[in-house]
Amino acid sequence: MGKGKIAAQVGHASVESFLRTGSTHPHLLDAWLASGQKKICLKAKDEDVFETLITQAKRDNIPFHLIRDAGHTQIPSGSKTVLALGPYGEEELDSITGELKLL
Amino acid sequence: MGKGKIAAQVGHASVESFLRTGSTHPHLLDAWLASGQKKICLKAKDEDVFETLITQAKRDNIPFHLIRDAGHTQIPSGSKTVLALGPYGEEELDSITGELKLL
Repeated sequence: MGKGKIAAQVGHASVESFLRTGSTHPHLLDAWLASGQKKICLKAKDEDVFETLITQAKRDNIPFHLIRDAGHTQIPSGSKTVLALGPYGEEELDSITGELKLL
Repeated sequence: MGKGKIAAQVGHASVESFLRTGSTHPHLLDAWLASGQKKICLKAKDEDVFETLITQAKRDNIPFHLIRDAGHTQIPSGSKTVLALGPYGEEELDSITGELKLL
């Protein structure tokens, strides 16, 4: 994906995370909104990384949302492009993503 | 900015747009949520482009939000990084952004 496509996918993930955490953990969403709305973009080498992270997120009750692209441009329809994790506690997020490099 | 940094800025812009349009044009936000949440990332060659677009957005009553970076990484604090326009009518958005190239 080109950088504009990546950015749009992260935009999707940001709005979905907002909606998801807002419905399941509203106090965490309020804290996140009030503290600069921190976001960190990390790199996953393949879709298996998403599966591992989803398993860990379910175990730890971390809100997540997997973005699949509609495939209008650049990539096949249904491709998994971004896994949004949180907003959630920084320590808990680090414990499952700490090995990943910055995008 | 690297692509991860760009993506995070677009993530900020996406959430802020969502909040802004939700408060001023809730019917447009609902329509956008129900129709795939389309996002398009365009390139602005410098900050002057933002100023021109903001003037046009105010004139046409298009919701907008300018993202300034806190400057923790990569770029000086307060740098204008992304101008979010909409969610709003596609025709109206095209009329002010149609000359810009995809990011």
